[in-house]
Amino acid sequence: MGHQSTKNLPITKVNADESNITFDILAIEEPLEIRVEYGPENHRQVRNVSVTMRTPGNDAELAAGFLFTEGIIKDLKDIVSVHHCFIACAENKENIIQVSLNESTTPNLQNTERNFYTTSSCGVCGKGSINAIRTVSAFSEQLDNNAVNADVLYQLPDILRQHQKVFEDTGGLHASALFNNTGELLIVREDVGRHNALDKLIGASINERLLPLTRNILMLSGRASFELVQKAAMAGINIIAAVGAPSTLAVELAAEFNITLVGFLRGQRFNIYTAAHRILIPDYETTH
Amino acid sequence: MGHQSTKNLPITKVNADESNITFDILAIEEPLEIRVEYGPENHRQVRNVSVTMRTPGNDAELAAGFLFTEGIIKDLKDIVSVHHCFIACAENKENIIQVSLNESTTPNLQNTERNFYTTSSCGVCGKGSINAIRTVSAFSEQLDNNAVNADVLYQLPDILRQHQKVFEDTGGLHASALFNNTGELLIVREDVGRHNALDKLIGASINERLLPLTRNILMLSGRASFELVQKAAMAGINIIAAVGAPSTLAVELAAEFNITLVGFLRGQRFNIYTAAHRILIPDYETTH
Repeated sequence: MGHQSTKNLPITKVNADESNITFDILAIEEPLEIRVEYGPENHRQVRNVSVTMRTPGNDAELAAGFLFTEGIIKDLKDIVSVHHCFIACAENKENIIQVSLNESTTPNLQNTERNFYTTSSCGVCGKGSINAIRTVSAFSEQLDNNAVNADVLYQLPDILRQHQKVFEDTGGLHASALFNNTGELLIVREDVGRHNALDKLIGASINERLLPLTRNILMLSGRASFELVQKAAMAGINIIAAVGAPSTLAVELAAEFNITLVGFLRGQRFNIYTAAHRILIPDYETTH
Repeated sequence: MGHQSTKNLPITKVNADESNITFDILAIEEPLEIRVEYGPENHRQVRNVSVTMRTPGNDAELAAGFLFTEGIIKDLKDIVSVHHCFIACAENKENIIQVSLNESTTPNLQNTERNFYTTSSCGVCGKGSINAIRTVSAFSEQLDNNAVNADVLYQLPDILRQHQKVFEDTGGLHASALFNNTGELLIVREDVGRHNALDKLIGASINERLLPLTRNILMLSGRASFELVQKAAMAGINIIAAVGAPSTLAVELAAEFNITLVGFLRGQRFNIYTAAHRILIPDYETTH
């Protein structure tokens, strides 16, 4: 198949004692468009049924499993073949997969509209997704008059944890938190869906007339996906710190938008993936 | 607002020494339909723009944040009011929220189709979501000829971790694993999206002609959401074990489908949320 599930990217690794530039392995996140081909021989049709952000690999299984678990097909014997479409732009050749059904099968496409990502641009390569966002963002130029001390970052996870009320009770919620750049907590929101927690936080920021959030830090309780960086970019956020790992597409979007992306913020250490200039790190050379 | 973010449910708590019935606090997961009302006074229109599975609370912020971060509105001053619609079935009265825009604003609805969950049934209360699934599941009656020893369950997280190759490298992936009921690992799949990992796993099971998966255990590396239980039900799975917490709607769906749902499976302990009869627990009374 030739696909890759991970990618090596240069990062700045920071801990209480030192900081150095190294490489880190990231999970690849790319869109996959699933198409279904069906109908009698003289009238074959192709329909897009889903675009999902996925890690490349086992795409044929993903497509077959999706059609089955969403109730689009009832019997796997209906599938004649599953193959990638090597069309459209050069970059997305493994991001479209087509499932061909036999002539007598009518797929149940009633519920599929919810999954179809309609976008005027390419949309199924990372570049297309990023360009689509650039056109709608109100704050597409992220300002450089923001900065945060490494010492401030170290404290954020503990502060967030203390204010995650529902997580404390259930162990089952994602959180987004907004800090100012001296580490003062402004807003926390929680949800079973990480995108919802961030939408709530940005909605609250809107109510308090805080936008654009150019002098703030967005803290995420989990991983940093493409979708979360996209929403942050829309609100003018230029420093994102996540407890978990970022995906490749999250890093690419952050780089394009000049957003500082920090991951694995735990204890006295973190990784900087993009725009490291906004993180003020003690000069170990002179203090040691 | 009168909303609740958590719910107390009876569970069976099991560890190496004892098992007892107690209560546990779960994060509520319910659908929220976001509607936008716009247009001139003599021609107001209402459009559904999204249904998202969310934790109730801060729904107005969620709706405003969603419209803004998705680029549907560009300026928050365009919002005249945000309010819940107390219509439709009695159970969903807090699950529809409407954002009214001023007369001069035209929302950008071009990209919203991807978010619109079209379903013939109610769809915005838990019951509607569960009924929608019942109608399409090929294996809606989960069989009772499956069982697993507690000792077998204790071993599954370690076995899964040893086989999560990409997670090991990146710290950034969800995994789904299929075991037989004596604890033998059959299939593992990983992805940045937990629903994709499960679709890949079910797609692989299809390829190997293993469906329905009535003598197996599905192991999830993270939390158990409604969507994951739904996909499992479609494949005939009747025992699900998650490292993380389940949501309320995941538990309700598992109960309706007679699926055994285990959460917080870590070390020598776990919680059973539904259909506890399939977990064989040593009789502590006689052995102590």
